[in-house]
Amino acid sequence: MGVLVAAPEVRIPARDAVERALVDLERRLGPSKVDTSETALLNYGQDESEAIGRKPDAVVLADGRDDIAAVLAIAEKHGVPVTPRAGGTGRTGGAVPVAGGIVLATHAMSKILEINRQDLLAVVQPGVVTADLHAAVEAEGMFYPPDPNSLKTCMIGGNVAENAGGPRAFKYGVTREYVLGLEACLMGGRVVRTGKRTIKGVTGYDVTALLVGSEGTLGVFSEITLKLVPRPQEVATVLALFEDVRDAADAVRRIIAGGLVPRCLELMDGMTLGAIRKQGVAVDPRAQAMLLIEVDGGAGTLDPIVERLGEALTEGGHALDVVAAQDAAQRARLWEARRMLSPATRKLAKYKLSEDVVVPRSRLVDLLTEVDRIGERTGVMHLTYGHAGDGNLHVNFLWNDDSERPAIDRAIGALMRATVDLGGTLSGEHGIGVLKAAYLPLEQSSELIALQQDLKRVFDPSGLLNPGKIFPTGHAAC
Amino acid sequence: MGVLVAAPEVRIPARDAVERALVDLERRLGPSKVDTSETALLNYGQDESEAIGRKPDAVVLADGRDDIAAVLAIAEKHGVPVTPRAGGTGRTGGAVPVAGGIVLATHAMSKILEINRQDLLAVVQPGVVTADLHAAVEAEGMFYPPDPNSLKTCMIGGNVAENAGGPRAFKYGVTREYVLGLEACLMGGRVVRTGKRTIKGVTGYDVTALLVGSEGTLGVFSEITLKLVPRPQEVATVLALFEDVRDAADAVRRIIAGGLVPRCLELMDGMTLGAIRKQGVAVDPRAQAMLLIEVDGGAGTLDPIVERLGEALTEGGHALDVVAAQDAAQRARLWEARRMLSPATRKLAKYKLSEDVVVPRSRLVDLLTEVDRIGERTGVMHLTYGHAGDGNLHVNFLWNDDSERPAIDRAIGALMRATVDLGGTLSGEHGIGVLKAAYLPLEQSSELIALQQDLKRVFDPSGLLNPGKIFPTGHAAC
Repeated sequence: MGVLVAAPEVRIPARDAVERALVDLERRLGPSKVDTSETALLNYGQDESEAIGRKPDAVVLADGRDDIAAVLAIAEKHGVPVTPRAGGTGRTGGAVPVAGGIVLATHAMSKILEINRQDLLAVVQPGVVTADLHAAVEAEGMFYPPDPNSLKTCMIGGNVAENAGGPRAFKYGVTREYVLGLEACLMGGRVVRTGKRTIKGVTGYDVTALLVGSEGTLGVFSEITLKLVPRPQEVATVLALFEDVRDAADAVRRIIAGGLVPRCLELMDGMTLGAIRKQGVAVDPRAQAMLLIEVDGGAGTLDPIVERLGEALTEGGHALDVVAAQDAAQRARLWEARRMLSPATRKLAKYKLSEDVVVPRSRLVDLLTEVDRIGERTGVMHLTYGHAGDGNLHVNFLWNDDSERPAIDRAIGALMRATVDLGGTLSGEHGIGVLKAAYLPLEQSSELIALQQDLKRVFDPSGLLNPGKIFPTGHAAC
Repeated sequence: MGVLVAAPEVRIPARDAVERALVDLERRLGPSKVDTSETALLNYGQDESEAIGRKPDAVVLADGRDDIAAVLAIAEKHGVPVTPRAGGTGRTGGAVPVAGGIVLATHAMSKILEINRQDLLAVVQPGVVTADLHAAVEAEGMFYPPDPNSLKTCMIGGNVAENAGGPRAFKYGVTREYVLGLEACLMGGRVVRTGKRTIKGVTGYDVTALLVGSEGTLGVFSEITLKLVPRPQEVATVLALFEDVRDAADAVRRIIAGGLVPRCLELMDGMTLGAIRKQGVAVDPRAQAMLLIEVDGGAGTLDPIVERLGEALTEGGHALDVVAAQDAAQRARLWEARRMLSPATRKLAKYKLSEDVVVPRSRLVDLLTEVDRIGERTGVMHLTYGHAGDGNLHVNFLWNDDSERPAIDRAIGALMRATVDLGGTLSGEHGIGVLKAAYLPLEQSSELIALQQDLKRVFDPSGLLNPGKIFPTGHAAC
């Protein structure tokens, strides 16, 4: 099923070192937590990306901080690489072992340890499913905004490691904005507690922020303190259809220029609408673009906002239709269609690769134009949807035959270059992992890459924690 | 005027090394940018804190990135320490040179390079005065929320270095939330550009976040890209008086539990109100506490919010009075009184030391009780005001005679210990600087402190950039 082979220059551990590590692990953790069955090695050797790594030697099912620290101590002692993993739903291969060794699975650490209404915070273990946290805090009148598409299966530990986003990021920001503090286990077994239980706090360096989004390469989280906000009392959803995706992008520009701050501002292009229609959802056949917009706020505050939103959408006369969801059920159906996009579009071709580039919002139309040009030049089928409010678009390339692979690679390379040329960034929420590592130098200077590799060495001098990620081959941190 | 002597274990540069550095600097930058006059050395040897350092050997007035990089290259070559400085309004001695050497002043780099309405961002030099940025972006319908009390004199470079806050942080967060990208010059003269021009972006480690709040110890900013938000269309200010500060803290709790998110939620205790009365402001003589609350939002959205706010304030029947400002002029007067607090309370005694501890909001009453106990135990006069919504209080200790100094030190130590015991943090917005460095181990483990010192060495192996800051004596990073 995988189509990309990740082959960074990483050291494969010697067999006898692995054997000695396994003996130590079983002695320390008990045999039930160390799984070397073929099924486990296959299951934990992949994630939801196209990355193919190297089959691990063992999977450790951690049940607490001490288990994590023990694995990191034993692995360092024997020189065996460790690939940490929570939900395994990543899209860039962050949880795929590329040098064998140990997969350190934290999904069994799934306790919500505290929900505190007065201090507006939650303390959780890394294996808590994001949707479970949503439900638990909303039941108590609070709100945890980050909502990656995989929220029903992804876990907070992975969300923090990848700095996950989601549609609501336009108003509320990404995971980073919600991590107050961390308990992190470092390679070798050291444990540090970083951050605070307060919103403000400038004591020392912001080590918490450095760990968020570090893709499992700096430390493994055993406990996460998250900021919550009050649950919005009302939500309204508006849908607008356009004949041209550029008109939709133009409406996005007008909404933002008008000072409106919807919590979501989602764009779908014509190919994407086609995939939605194939799922049985009725969409005006003239429509070549859709905006799905959601606003939230206090009780009784939304009417004037929805009115201004309607004005911004219809201004210019290019909208085919603008409708507000009449009730919660209708709203849920609209969002279900949005969340089904990734699996639905997957059916359009044998292979699909979803990029998540970001450009400054003012360059959205330029990016869409550029994507069309890349499609024409390379002959690669593509569709685009995503978080238009953030300038964060999921550009999907589709193909059916392995022989098309070189054209796909050209298309990806061209997209990455166009993104950087437009002042954008390679990844908005999926991370770099192994799949985008080769493109890092397009965006970042060799000075900045070298500086980050020096930071990596502070946390993991032997380069054994999640090797082969983020940094391109030839820039290997170890 | 200073009362505390900062004497960390830092290396004083040899005279001949300084002389050689000065020759190189004059040759490279021209003599007009290198000031060794006695007036300059005195002026730039202090900031607005009580810290007394060691008179610098020269002040360099940087006029651009290349000047900054040149200073950092020449200083490292000759082993001369550098203390970077923007507005010099810090409260913990961050800009006070403690080992002599060069003060690198960036206030002349005061250009706003770009204000971009579509992308909601601004690009500025470090010497832009915060209030000037406010005025410039508000004139174009946008808003830069961080508003430290010194906003008319402090500068963005210092705001970023200290991760400055201000009253509006309750709703909008602190400076960290608004820094998208940085151009930073590192010791030795390397220049790195970090971050992005987009809100989302997870490419590599968040080096930007690591630099924000690093108190000038990791790098010197030559250009700063800031996120803006749409300017709120309406603002309403409400003032409530109470006979007991604990009733005010309880009202804060009710406001937050009710799901309200004011942009400011400021508390003043009885002693503080006394100082305000002395400034000629009429305040009900029974009042021993005041809350100053501000809400903002879209046009026509505030009425229901102000109504709920009024209910939360009057519930329980402990409020003496609740009034809403009737117009902008009345609002401005209320805030002028708040902003005058720091200078007004300074007049109550010869010496004043303002701490800025933070506790989880639920512990606000506990902290206020603890402050009273510390006052009784040590006999030290004190007053408290600050950002109650964030749990961030400015506890001010006042005294008139040098002989009281040991009691003051006992009071500060007790406050720091109480704060940490209540789950809080030593500093909400002033930073650690030299004045709080000794207390760092109260809050942070030796493992975390050592990790941060290792990070410091990545940026500044020779320990010459702003030495003596953050880390306590005996924990020296160099």
